[in-house]
Amino acid sequence: MKKVQKHDRISVITNILTNNPNKIFTLTHFCNLFNCAKSTISEDLDIIREIFTNYEIGTIETISGAAGGVYYNPLMSKEQMENFTKELCEHINASERIIPGGYIYTNDLLYTPSISKNIGIALASLFKDVEIDYVITVETKGIPIALMTAMVLNKPMIVVRNQSKLTDGTVIHMNYITNSNHRIKTMCLSTRAIKKGSKVLFIDDFMKGGGTAKGICDLMQEFESEVVGVGVLMATKQPEEKVYNDFKTLLWLDDVDEITREVDIYPGI
Amino acid sequence: MKKVQKHDRISVITNILTNNPNKIFTLTHFCNLFNCAKSTISEDLDIIREIFTNYEIGTIETISGAAGGVYYNPLMSKEQMENFTKELCEHINASERIIPGGYIYTNDLLYTPSISKNIGIALASLFKDVEIDYVITVETKGIPIALMTAMVLNKPMIVVRNQSKLTDGTVIHMNYITNSNHRIKTMCLSTRAIKKGSKVLFIDDFMKGGGTAKGICDLMQEFESEVVGVGVLMATKQPEEKVYNDFKTLLWLDDVDEITREVDIYPGI
Repeated sequence: MKKVQKHDRISVITNILTNNPNKIFTLTHFCNLFNCAKSTISEDLDIIREIFTNYEIGTIETISGAAGGVYYNPLMSKEQMENFTKELCEHINASERIIPGGYIYTNDLLYTPSISKNIGIALASLFKDVEIDYVITVETKGIPIALMTAMVLNKPMIVVRNQSKLTDGTVIHMNYITNSNHRIKTMCLSTRAIKKGSKVLFIDDFMKGGGTAKGICDLMQEFESEVVGVGVLMATKQPEEKVYNDFKTLLWLDDVDEITREVDIYPGI
Repeated sequence: MKKVQKHDRISVITNILTNNPNKIFTLTHFCNLFNCAKSTISEDLDIIREIFTNYEIGTIETISGAAGGVYYNPLMSKEQMENFTKELCEHINASERIIPGGYIYTNDLLYTPSISKNIGIALASLFKDVEIDYVITVETKGIPIALMTAMVLNKPMIVVRNQSKLTDGTVIHMNYITNSNHRIKTMCLSTRAIKKGSKVLFIDDFMKGGGTAKGICDLMQEFESEVVGVGVLMATKQPEEKVYNDFKTLLWLDDVDEITREVDIYPGI
């Protein structure tokens, strides 16, 4: 291979950092890759850091010391968040999305990777100062945005299921009441899923009464773990007093009128 | 902002392409972003293309003509696939993963974004020459790898559910028989989920008898659509004759011995 040029290093480092958000790479890692001195890599990283800041495509963070290195944090700025949530509202605010029962069809958004990835970046941005060990969610619709949030934060995801499966091994099984329609539901989680003493961020696509969030908090106690944040894509304005109130939402849903076919939704940021 | 340097353009273009696999960007898009001539962007892209090829971090593809542009394809080379599947085998081949019933616990792998993303890249690489409109999967465990495959291919994902939900609106409901344990199960899919005449790629974490893959094919007929590929993370050697045989797998599982605590697993590539 011909001599490595500055362009080459900048492109490859950008690719590696972009592909692995919040993963720490030592300078030595890049030195070995390009067979060059630390000072050279340091200069390259300074250039990339400045470029990323100028173009608002996230930040390059440095950790000094023996365990140090650099990582890419693809967080959204306040303005980017506002634009993105406004865009989401426009997507969702369409009469053809209203389905019988006054629900809104959002599967197409949740299941389109380019959109769910941006939702993940937005949700991760809301909790950028919270230290967590896992992102937790409940099957099924919340999984894509929880996975994307976990990808951005470089943490594993945990999926709580509605019934236990053979492939989960031993599970802890908990009944809880959904506050939106007062039905008894079940949460199951494999005893292997989480280490004791963990901090988890609960991510879901929708919150109405808050029963699921409260259920997750109760379930985490059984695992001697703690919910340190709750983030949802969309929360309903009513009931105002939910059984779990300490959450952040990207969107507020105020009203779905099945007769006039109007949806009242606005950014939560 | 100071004058845009070549380094800046190369880093930002690399970031944008890396963040949006298989999404086509016109040269004009970059010209506007940097306020420069097409010939300049062309040169930058030539440099990035060569770098990506040299470092085996995917390819930069060009589409000529009016609807043309460039896109990033993060496919794995044959050698990278072999190394990755070998690594996966080492992860999975651990006696503590065996759970009662002779099953293997893999949730931690499927739910760790950095791993499921690579599984997605590997699965997408297996079907790189197949034209598809959607990636389809069945809840729950297959969702993360299906979403990552869809992200790499830049296509929406569809999730078939085991029971219908209010938020799905009108659904098509189909019973089928799982061939591994001959139980009747249900598949439900919203009538809004898929356009008629679509081609879908079915992705799942596990295949034994092939009943689910066959079920998806039958269900797709109801949507006047067609399964054009089936890819799984892991397939069992037994039964050799499955009800659906036209699939690709990253890993073969030959035997799980609950007594000796041994797992016989090897790459399918």
